[in-house]
Amino acid sequence: MTARHGNGSGRPAPRPNFGDRLTEAVAARESQIVLGIDPDPAKLWPAAVEATSEARARLASTLSEAEDAAGGVGETPSGSRAAGVISRLETAAAVLAHCRALVDAAAPAVVAVKPQLACFERLGAPGWLALEHVCEHARSRGLLVLADGKRGDVPVTAAAYGQALVSSTPSPFGPVSGLLADAFTANPLLGRDALAPMIASARAANAGAFVLVRTSNPGAADILDLELATGERLWERLAQLVDELGDEGPSGLKDVGAVTGATEPQHLARLRELMPHTPFLLPGIGAQGGDVAALAPAFAPGRAGGLITSSRSIANAHQNSGSSPPDAARKEAERLREQAWSLG
Amino acid sequence: MTARHGNGSGRPAPRPNFGDRLTEAVAARESQIVLGIDPDPAKLWPAAVEATSEARARLASTLSEAEDAAGGVGETPSGSRAAGVISRLETAAAVLAHCRALVDAAAPAVVAVKPQLACFERLGAPGWLALEHVCEHARSRGLLVLADGKRGDVPVTAAAYGQALVSSTPSPFGPVSGLLADAFTANPLLGRDALAPMIASARAANAGAFVLVRTSNPGAADILDLELATGERLWERLAQLVDELGDEGPSGLKDVGAVTGATEPQHLARLRELMPHTPFLLPGIGAQGGDVAALAPAFAPGRAGGLITSSRSIANAHQNSGSSPPDAARKEAERLREQAWSLG
Repeated sequence: MTARHGNGSGRPAPRPNFGDRLTEAVAARESQIVLGIDPDPAKLWPAAVEATSEARARLASTLSEAEDAAGGVGETPSGSRAAGVISRLETAAAVLAHCRALVDAAAPAVVAVKPQLACFERLGAPGWLALEHVCEHARSRGLLVLADGKRGDVPVTAAAYGQALVSSTPSPFGPVSGLLADAFTANPLLGRDALAPMIASARAANAGAFVLVRTSNPGAADILDLELATGERLWERLAQLVDELGDEGPSGLKDVGAVTGATEPQHLARLRELMPHTPFLLPGIGAQGGDVAALAPAFAPGRAGGLITSSRSIANAHQNSGSSPPDAARKEAERLREQAWSLG
Repeated sequence: MTARHGNGSGRPAPRPNFGDRLTEAVAARESQIVLGIDPDPAKLWPAAVEATSEARARLASTLSEAEDAAGGVGETPSGSRAAGVISRLETAAAVLAHCRALVDAAAPAVVAVKPQLACFERLGAPGWLALEHVCEHARSRGLLVLADGKRGDVPVTAAAYGQALVSSTPSPFGPVSGLLADAFTANPLLGRDALAPMIASARAANAGAFVLVRTSNPGAADILDLELATGERLWERLAQLVDELGDEGPSGLKDVGAVTGATEPQHLARLRELMPHTPFLLPGIGAQGGDVAALAPAFAPGRAGGLITSSRSIANAHQNSGSSPPDAARKEAERLREQAWSLG
């Protein structure tokens, strides 16, 4: 926290920008791997579900005894609604247990985690609480937190997203801290003035933004690959915008990054040409079919120039091995780390 | 709820799509006005802040008596963290009180509310809980709920957003309901396969999606106005995509809408030509500078073809009048309703 929030000496704190912080973190951990955290409640590690189920059984038995003692009648008219509230809390608790175990298993081989906000939002308020705890747990393991929500909106709302992700919100009751992520993903469709408040929030917190430039899904061709009147593709124009938006510090790496799908490695050389000092966030390894060896151009500005995200291939590694989920995740994360590090 | 979730008779329920539901609601309420709910904790109605402050004073006094009785020592080492937790809860409580009062004031003149997710997310888990209560309160007043988060992501994540916004998530502990909104806003940058799971979730719930086509911020010109090699503007291509994605029912209005900024009324005729049966969500009235009378082309397919959103001009109406915040909000909402209805 010292490097990010000042040294408390009263003099202006040194302010390494996100590019510098990322460069340092990658060197210190000898890893360019980002653990994607996309929990699907239907595919949690069994131990996380069991722990929650046991807690529920204990609770149910206690409640049942209390009800018997009070001569209660069991299911009440509000029982179905209460059951919904309880199953939501249980699901969020199991998701949190799963994510903590996943972070613990992969931490030695990764530099950052990338929680997928959608996967927590779908569990409502308890899901958001689980997200906050997952971020805190990852920080306690020395990892950067990249909040993956791909937000984008008109300027006044973009400022609110900045507060939610990397800053705080003034209120009559005192400031309310947001997620305090080290970086977030952002959608550039609404243009420069819509990105600006999010990037300003990030910069003020020495945090970073990764802007969508060319994603890894097949449908990215529909819009991002459109040819403009100038002969460029839309993603080339977005790449220029991202290059302009970033500031660089002593490390030479900018504080505004780009999301560049690894399933289209033929684009990487061109993307690097358009954004020579921009960190790339490369999803699409593993479950989405990308190949680490094809990513070499991403690392031109140094190892921190290419962050490789992997979620399902780490979390679900046990499905293709005889190992326990944590052991299989640890091995797969380490395998990816070695493979990427050998390219740098 | 019956129309949306079936009639319980065992026969297939009638399934009016979102376009039909919207048409009915606009006719029944004689309003095309959507109340935008973008609470800024620093600009809440005073009564909401006072109610929360009084509750805090009572709580503090009770805690202080208890501490005295126990011989406590006041501020503990974790006091600063606890203060942060408490100010977050208080802020969310005040935001909820403000939003409930705002909904109550404007309800008679509006057909729907549009909570801005960023404004709740920035208050963390308590903020999300407040959002859920605001949605429930609006439904209890007979209003549709349009969740404004402008989400968009690769297909597997888009499906998770669908669960979060209009559906539920399977889990070992039972299904977990999301916001169950009547519609949401979506970002089309990632293309058709990324929109598809969100639209499928919406359709299965008889809900709708409003896809960004041309927004109201000046920076929209940077990307959305780019000229393509075909001579079209990017927003024209997006309009075609949105037209193709929508299904229409007996009302003739499609279930996939478009967000079309009212600050560029010269575009509206062309947008209507490209999307003849699409409901338009028209932000930009009031605080952003749009003018209701310029919107007539939006209403070509009927009054429900153009929904006019207004947030700050309603919530802050008391700043330009001698009335109390609720009275001023009620009058401004009614003024907008009459003005728009007279065009239809």
